[in-house]
Amino acid sequence: MANKTFIISAPGKVILHGEHAVVHGKVALAVSLNLKTYLRIQPCSDQKVQLNLPNINVHLNWKPAALQFLQSAIDVADVLNPKTASQIQVDQLRRFAGIPEGSTDTASISILCFLYLYSAISASYGQMPSLDILVWSELPIGAGLGSSAAYCVCLAAALLSASGAITCPVPQEKDTTRWNEDELELINKWAFQGEKLIHGNPSGVDNAVGTWGGMLRYHAGKIVPLASVPTLRILLTNTKVSRSTKVLVAGVKDKLNKLPNIIKPVLDSIDAISCECERVLAAIASGIAIDEHYRILEVTFAHRSVTLYCICAESGQIMQYQNLATRCQCNAFNCKAGLTIDHSVNLAPVNLLQDTSPSVVEALKRTLKDLGYDCWETVIGGLGVALHSPSSLHKDIFQLLCDVKNCQ
Amino acid sequence: MANKTFIISAPGKVILHGEHAVVHGKVALAVSLNLKTYLRIQPCSDQKVQLNLPNINVHLNWKPAALQFLQSAIDVADVLNPKTASQIQVDQLRRFAGIPEGSTDTASISILCFLYLYSAISASYGQMPSLDILVWSELPIGAGLGSSAAYCVCLAAALLSASGAITCPVPQEKDTTRWNEDELELINKWAFQGEKLIHGNPSGVDNAVGTWGGMLRYHAGKIVPLASVPTLRILLTNTKVSRSTKVLVAGVKDKLNKLPNIIKPVLDSIDAISCECERVLAAIASGIAIDEHYRILEVTFAHRSVTLYCICAESGQIMQYQNLATRCQCNAFNCKAGLTIDHSVNLAPVNLLQDTSPSVVEALKRTLKDLGYDCWETVIGGLGVALHSPSSLHKDIFQLLCDVKNCQ
Repeated sequence: MANKTFIISAPGKVILHGEHAVVHGKVALAVSLNLKTYLRIQPCSDQKVQLNLPNINVHLNWKPAALQFLQSAIDVADVLNPKTASQIQVDQLRRFAGIPEGSTDTASISILCFLYLYSAISASYGQMPSLDILVWSELPIGAGLGSSAAYCVCLAAALLSASGAITCPVPQEKDTTRWNEDELELINKWAFQGEKLIHGNPSGVDNAVGTWGGMLRYHAGKIVPLASVPTLRILLTNTKVSRSTKVLVAGVKDKLNKLPNIIKPVLDSIDAISCECERVLAAIASGIAIDEHYRILEVTFAHRSVTLYCICAESGQIMQYQNLATRCQCNAFNCKAGLTIDHSVNLAPVNLLQDTSPSVVEALKRTLKDLGYDCWETVIGGLGVALHSPSSLHKDIFQLLCDVKNCQ
Repeated sequence: MANKTFIISAPGKVILHGEHAVVHGKVALAVSLNLKTYLRIQPCSDQKVQLNLPNINVHLNWKPAALQFLQSAIDVADVLNPKTASQIQVDQLRRFAGIPEGSTDTASISILCFLYLYSAISASYGQMPSLDILVWSELPIGAGLGSSAAYCVCLAAALLSASGAITCPVPQEKDTTRWNEDELELINKWAFQGEKLIHGNPSGVDNAVGTWGGMLRYHAGKIVPLASVPTLRILLTNTKVSRSTKVLVAGVKDKLNKLPNIIKPVLDSIDAISCECERVLAAIASGIAIDEHYRILEVTFAHRSVTLYCICAESGQIMQYQNLATRCQCNAFNCKAGLTIDHSVNLAPVNLLQDTSPSVVEALKRTLKDLGYDCWETVIGGLGVALHSPSSLHKDIFQLLCDVKNCQ
């Protein structure tokens, strides 16, 4: 890692298809989102380990010697298969950081996650130099867009690089580089440990998308990255409707138990939607992009909303959203409303934009913003975790990462 | 029939569940609607057969002798199993009535249907006295609510009674009577012949509901009236969105061919929705009306809209409607939006009202009317074809039937 500043990024994720159905053994497709989390790592001259998380107002630093004490509790059994933090370890970290028991706010959890990854990676692969780490994200927190996983992936990549566990492939001027497959595998495993500390029992999909990018198929606990996927323009909307994932998942289960003959076939249809979408995206990625493919994508997106409506309890918001898209003449094949909930408390509908004209997209965005929704015009299917040369970044993002002053 | 005035009514119908799916071998449920067609039949003193259809501005009369000529072309093979009008017979009726070839307007078709039923029933069962027949309907025409079938059922009941083929059970003062099972069977068969003349190849569901009322299960060409059904308050809305049934049916078939793995399970789910609704309505009718039953009814209605959305092409209107119902706080279990299309060109969403408060219903009605929709607060599940004493009718309806002056 030497004496230079490096910038690492990891993408958020969207569940394209299979939300909720995945819990009942059906296929889900998760795709990377071009809203990213950025981590700036640089040496710290005054022998400190510094953590800055400006989005959530965390600015902390520790003496490396104090952190070394934490490593003594880490049991390094197999450096290729990191172990999950035990409750004893988490309690120790909590006491060290002065975080009250039971605190589950984003700041507390983010600090604990950093401390665990720092001490466990140091214990497993070797001491790290004094570091100044800053993490800033474009992703809204708790919106089902994989913000915590992107944080964990960035941290894992930065700390594994700093400890020497993986290489630090220096990107060319104005360029971006990535790690090799084995290194990505290790980043993903450590990021998953961070996710476990944050969520308890995550599926592992979010950190896998953050690591590999592109699209992943998730089925019966198995995560398979797809060979190639096209990047697609989308309009992502956060309706900010608060939802408890736990309550939604329980609602689907209850409906399935009470009305199995009605709900089971809907889950089968959702499974088929995922498979069909996967087939069509693979065809588009391989260059065979015909109108019929986009028409089928449209159908899969339209079905996504209504089948989710079938299995979830309520949907005033989806209906309103769908209606809005229709009113704004965004009902062409490439602009259908969808919905992601996943590990989220908010609804985040997705519109595939593809060839939708800028004026139509602007009209829809204005309408959505007037309703108090956040929306982002972005792309899906891009790269996973990557290392950037500072000059390869958009200057606004670079500026943002530099605005927080170095090693305080 | 003697020398008295009689009033016959037949109800319209709504497809509760299974629309479109029924074409692909799934169960559909049709239910009678308390919007009715009324037929007033009375003797005509000046030896004429008179037909008044004030809704469509038809006021015609013929000399019975002229009509007897038409009967000569009728082949009476089996009086219990009426034959379908041949093209030759239809052409002869058309020439007789001076209706140009190819005229398919409601007035022309209604006149042809009357002339066929009059002459075929006369030929089969005996001459009828001079008659003055007036038919007036509460049902919108061409809205998928079985207006043509209600017309055919009323005509068949009136003409079969007038010819002596069935009895004419005189209702008590302020009362309503019906025919026995065999007589209803005969009314239904003749009404079906009228429907065939109008629609070419109807399913027979509409005339069966008009005859028996209540609810019918239609599956693979077999129509089974259900033993008992509750009457339920609904809000019926005609969004007046023009749709071609032929185009919709072809669209579903096309989708099923192109995406069988996605669409087939949706049809299975619709089938299960029909069966579940049938079970719950039977339970409510038998007196076991628990909250859970109404909750399931709600679910079947919610699923009805979205599964129809899945298999049909488009749905801006359904979504708008559903959204309206939500906005008007009609999203309680007993006020969910649905949709009937059936043999229709219009969308006719249905809301189950049950215990919805009058102020909520009024708010929804006002909103719907402001949008230019027609809506009716009515009930489903009532009686089929019936004979009324004039004093048993609502005085507005009686007045309406009397306003058209007698035998002109």
